Amino acid sequence: MATNPSWILRSHPSAMPTTENWALEDRPVPEASDGELLVKTLWLSVDPYMRGRISPAKNYAAGFKLGDLMLGGGVGEVISSGSSDFSPGQIVMSDYFGWQPFTVVPASSAKLVATTDAPMQAALSYLGMPGLTAYFSLLKTARPKQGETVLISAASGAVGQIAGQIARIKGLDPVAVAGTDEKLEWCKALGYRAGVNHRTSADLVADVTAACPNGVDVFIDNTAGPIHDAAMLNLNAFGRVVVVGTIALADRFDQPDIGVRHLRRTLITRARIEGFLLDDHASEYETALAD
Amino acid sequence: MATNPSWILRSHPSAMPTTENWALEDRPVPEASDGELLVKTLWLSVDPYMRGRISPAKNYAAGFKLGDLMLGGGVGEVISSGSSDFSPGQIVMSDYFGWQPFTVVPASSAKLVATTDAPMQAALSYLGMPGLTAYFSLLKTARPKQGETVLISAASGAVGQIAGQIARIKGLDPVAVAGTDEKLEWCKALGYRAGVNHRTSADLVADVTAACPNGVDVFIDNTAGPIHDAAMLNLNAFGRVVVVGTIALADRFDQPDIGVRHLRRTLITRARIEGFLLDDHASEYETALAD
Repeated sequence: MATNPSWILRSHPSAMPTTENWALEDRPVPEASDGELLVKTLWLSVDPYMRGRISPAKNYAAGFKLGDLMLGGGVGEVISSGSSDFSPGQIVMSDYFGWQPFTVVPASSAKLVATTDAPMQAALSYLGMPGLTAYFSLLKTARPKQGETVLISAASGAVGQIAGQIARIKGLDPVAVAGTDEKLEWCKALGYRAGVNHRTSADLVADVTAACPNGVDVFIDNTAGPIHDAAMLNLNAFGRVVVVGTIALADRFDQPDIGVRHLRRTLITRARIEGFLLDDHASEYETALAD
Repeated sequence: MATNPSWILRSHPSAMPTTENWALEDRPVPEASDGELLVKTLWLSVDPYMRGRISPAKNYAAGFKLGDLMLGGGVGEVISSGSSDFSPGQIVMSDYFGWQPFTVVPASSAKLVATTDAPMQAALSYLGMPGLTAYFSLLKTARPKQGETVLISAASGAVGQIAGQIARIKGLDPVAVAGTDEKLEWCKALGYRAGVNHRTSADLVADVTAACPNGVDVFIDNTAGPIHDAAMLNLNAFGRVVVVGTIALADRFDQPDIGVRHLRRTLITRARIEGFLLDDHASEYETALAD
């Protein structure tokens, strides 16, 4: 029996997850039945949405139970195939890779990964979920107009780094919020015009004002938290806020988020604040990847 | 000199306004110059937006300064006219009536009031600003679909009583939130299916759940405050919240509204939360009144 060391959820974290929340267990290499693929894991993606899946709280993605194998997006090589659509040696992407060397995934969840145009792991980043999230949240949900200022939090993250580049390509004025000066420098190299370091800022509202002298027209909110306040207080009339993530709340995931509520500001600016989940846009992935 | 007792703003209220915030001063009856009308006040409207105008805080409507004559929506008779569009004896509506018996208003602000189809004061309620607010906030901003549940706060108020009737006429399922059982009974007589008394409720979230067994698809929020929480926690996927008013915050107008922030819930439900001001829809008033 070949070993297949596998990460198993042992406890639900109550604040920030630690390695104590998982156990590494040796499991047998599984076999693919009809409609399944046995894949060898080459790349795994650890994404913010997983924080919700390891919480017992109700969420948009079904949660893991204690003792469950951790699953997530991955890219791997087909070792054996129970589907006429795939054959051994092909590289595929699926959202159901186990955190283990050898996994069985449903063939229906797998997509062939082209390895000629980009590194295969791009299927987990700019050609995959984060890239599509950036594309649809910015262009479809926020509906920016030419020249508008787009503030993006977690700007150097998987979604933000793509959103800033899309904003630049589409003739918008992207401004980054990130947690180190190095990240901000990198953001500028990618196309962001300006940036705000939310960790060293003494006055986040004023720093966003300085970085966005024409105000904020669109805010791609990957974080919630104090950056959300700074964006709301700089929001122009008819501003749009797309709530893509709430990673600033990761250490208090099971507690309500207490803070300033911007309902009057929402009224006064006639802002539109909209929650975003990528799955809602699945029918348009191909159009987006072609754009 | 005929007397013209006039209400003058004496101080900016810091919480709920009191009569101490105004002084009654005798002023001369003014005269209409070119482009103006001298009107005799018949009806004045006291509306929630005025709370913002008597605050020194930045707001969507320009604020009054201390010593200013209070102005607001009114209906009155033209006494003398400096405009070829109006003649003495006509009944007009304007948003610039002083709180005084005789006022000069800009002729450009005046609209002739038809007194045949409805009482003239309807120009300040269902045929005026509150009626148009109900119409556009519900039908245009929230964009409800047939059969959807529409929760409306301040349901017996100027906007809410109209919004509930429009919802009923348009095949929606309106549910009222109001502060007394008498108001709720009246709401039901107007067409609301069910109601929640937010003052006597021991558990507003549960009571909204009971009144909206299929969840809340649209929330017309005239109040903010705890009713907003109860609506957000009952909001269905792709729910829409229109922030029309924040009257629950009237006693802490100059302080930030501290409470639960529903950003994660906004994300999970993919809610759309949008601020509403009637002025943005001015070009469509005639279409709305005809509907």
